[in-house]
Amino acid sequence: MAPTENATTATTATPGAPTGLQKAVRWHPPSYDIRVEEIPIPQIEHPDDAIVKITLAALCGSDLHIYRGHGGVSEVHTCGHEFIGEVVALGSSFGKDVKGRPALYSSLKVGDRIVSPFTVNCGECSVCRLGYTGRCPEGFLFGSPALNGGQAQYIRVPKAGGTLFNLSDPSTWSSSMSAEERKNALANLSDSSLLMLADILPTGVFAALQAINHPKVQPVLTGKPWPLCFTGAGDGVSILEEDRVFTAAIIGLGPVGVCAAISLLDTVSTGKIPFRIIAIDPNAARREKMKVVYDTIDASGKAGGEFSVLSIDEAKAKAKEWTNGVGCTAVLEVVGNVSALNLSYELVSAFGVIVSVGVHGEPPLPFTGRQVYNKNVSLDFGRCPARAMFPPAFDLLVKRQDIFGSIGEPASLIDSVVDFGKAAESYSAFDKGEVGKVIFDPWK
Amino acid sequence: MAPTENATTATTATPGAPTGLQKAVRWHPPSYDIRVEEIPIPQIEHPDDAIVKITLAALCGSDLHIYRGHGGVSEVHTCGHEFIGEVVALGSSFGKDVKGRPALYSSLKVGDRIVSPFTVNCGECSVCRLGYTGRCPEGFLFGSPALNGGQAQYIRVPKAGGTLFNLSDPSTWSSSMSAEERKNALANLSDSSLLMLADILPTGVFAALQAINHPKVQPVLTGKPWPLCFTGAGDGVSILEEDRVFTAAIIGLGPVGVCAAISLLDTVSTGKIPFRIIAIDPNAARREKMKVVYDTIDASGKAGGEFSVLSIDEAKAKAKEWTNGVGCTAVLEVVGNVSALNLSYELVSAFGVIVSVGVHGEPPLPFTGRQVYNKNVSLDFGRCPARAMFPPAFDLLVKRQDIFGSIGEPASLIDSVVDFGKAAESYSAFDKGEVGKVIFDPWK
Repeated sequence: MAPTENATTATTATPGAPTGLQKAVRWHPPSYDIRVEEIPIPQIEHPDDAIVKITLAALCGSDLHIYRGHGGVSEVHTCGHEFIGEVVALGSSFGKDVKGRPALYSSLKVGDRIVSPFTVNCGECSVCRLGYTGRCPEGFLFGSPALNGGQAQYIRVPKAGGTLFNLSDPSTWSSSMSAEERKNALANLSDSSLLMLADILPTGVFAALQAINHPKVQPVLTGKPWPLCFTGAGDGVSILEEDRVFTAAIIGLGPVGVCAAISLLDTVSTGKIPFRIIAIDPNAARREKMKVVYDTIDASGKAGGEFSVLSIDEAKAKAKEWTNGVGCTAVLEVVGNVSALNLSYELVSAFGVIVSVGVHGEPPLPFTGRQVYNKNVSLDFGRCPARAMFPPAFDLLVKRQDIFGSIGEPASLIDSVVDFGKAAESYSAFDKGEVGKVIFDPWK
Repeated sequence: MAPTENATTATTATPGAPTGLQKAVRWHPPSYDIRVEEIPIPQIEHPDDAIVKITLAALCGSDLHIYRGHGGVSEVHTCGHEFIGEVVALGSSFGKDVKGRPALYSSLKVGDRIVSPFTVNCGECSVCRLGYTGRCPEGFLFGSPALNGGQAQYIRVPKAGGTLFNLSDPSTWSSSMSAEERKNALANLSDSSLLMLADILPTGVFAALQAINHPKVQPVLTGKPWPLCFTGAGDGVSILEEDRVFTAAIIGLGPVGVCAAISLLDTVSTGKIPFRIIAIDPNAARREKMKVVYDTIDASGKAGGEFSVLSIDEAKAKAKEWTNGVGCTAVLEVVGNVSALNLSYELVSAFGVIVSVGVHGEPPLPFTGRQVYNKNVSLDFGRCPARAMFPPAFDLLVKRQDIFGSIGEPASLIDSVVDFGKAAESYSAFDKGEVGKVIFDPWK
């Protein structure tokens, strides 16, 4: 990752910043049409912008919504919302220590190594401050008609001081590790590993954390009945050891589903929580990947409990067996379609929690009011606030380099790194479930 | 509340328990057909049963689902799931101290004053122990074809040791008050006041607690960003005072909605949480009641913040004004229909929480997958676990006797106490929104 030829000179939107044409992976309407085209290198348009030279960009399952023509968009744009790279130009807002603005406006420099969350967020509105960066009112999704994506050689990042993570300055985020430990860890982390922080790892952690933190799940974990008012004092009703097995299902074992499983397993293992987790996918290759990942985690001595990787019908039977017909305390839905939601409902217990991080489209939710009332279902939908989730995702990334640190191994989440010449065929193969996660090197 | 003539002799299912005929309010299919009929006094059918002589029984908004023919039932049955009374017979399970069984199996006695939650729960399965008594697999709703209700002179209570609250023995539940304080409080609480514990007060508390306890609401209350990982350490993004105003909407100001408002106001006032709460109902009489209740609470010096009682259109404008267009952090849906859910979605913020305690029927949820994804909505549906919610509901009942302790006053939730001769007309008037909560005295 040597600095680019322009990196040392382009401290603001100066003529020293890169200009001319670049290669980019572009989507064309109506569907299944991916082309590599030459388009202008983006320039600073707003004082809060950064221009980033992209080192690696990944193909994500949610790119397929637009690819298939289901995204509700019809305009040509540069694809991709997962990228890592290096700052080559900064707008005039940078280099100034303005009270109340995110710290990166004063500290980010040309030449810094960055990873970006998959959405822009300002970092200075109430929504961002509360941690809900994925829904910043000034936010955009990279790789959409509103904002060109990262499957290119350069990208413009709006609100860059609120959006980017500066991997060259670990003092700009908190962690369970010290800044020194983070610095040492970063020196050993490959770009392909750090790229997991753009979306799939925080989204997996987001799914797991929402389940674990939900008040309806807490009684199983803490032994204190919901809502901490049916206490056993006098009434003779107390939670028993047998009630304290955390039962969960993970539906969809694409890269995000596997990340959700890794995060959930890390949490229950660290917390010494007995568990029975069912990981579900109709695709045998994905199940095989999940099994190898679990064996890797298990082999490292951190896991306890029971974990079963199953097809849909097998999972229904196993959930009944493991929960005495009551259903799972939590279901993580990592697919984003109606059949996955129906399976979630079937598997969840009364007063259980369905966490859905799948990107859903136009179809209505497949539940009647009576169904959700009768089962006292809790549902948490939506996009990961990746900017806010970065600290725990980073810690997990460092901890599980046995999985995230490699490419093309049985336990790797990344299948291969390819050049843009393979973009169209990679989209097609990924769409058909023939390959796992693919990364593009725009400079190959 | 003098003991009945049989009370001192019927210690088990003995011939001394009451027999013969009784008066009961019965629903007849298909709809709007309420009749007072003579039916046999129920008898002990199972060792865990209790027979209760009913002192007062109430008419509840959710009785209207069956009344209108929307309940999906077609069999004649005794109505009502809110009742208070006195034990007149107990099955053979009682009077025995069996390890692992709820304490009431050893301590409940003929002659004890009880109030019942609106559903049966065994108190000895995993679901009950976790606090989810409203969905006990052995549970039933009183006043349904599966189990005759409380608008009668006598009722059979299955699983009575797990289900009932013994108001004669305050040592059988926990509370923020001492057992002595509870005993003194009970001596001053009327039956009509305690009857609020059967459903409407715990359901209101349940709605408020689910909102307050939700992890997505916590950042506003605690000042710590969700999910407690976007800390301001280094990144310069911290929650400000202005972000910490709890904004909420309550949709539906029937008795449960008013109870939800009282509980929410009690929680935010006690916690000194700045708030802006909008209470919404299209019915002017209900809005007037809510205003008087709020003034009563406010007059007692416990409330702070802003509270506005509005019609639907006014509420939409106020929510925009109070939240800068972002929407409310929490919406409590206390109606149970599609238009209330649509309004909830419109009013809630991204990453906000919709708590729905309304009893929903067959219509599908009115949301597309894209809508719930795009707003990162959390939803908590379903029935109150009233047995588990009794302790905080009792404490609030004692605290707010200015509201719950009276009948027919401007701030009362109970409009009147009538005899069964007024049953049919009371259902009809309640259905049309012409009266508030009505209580039946079966012995008048």
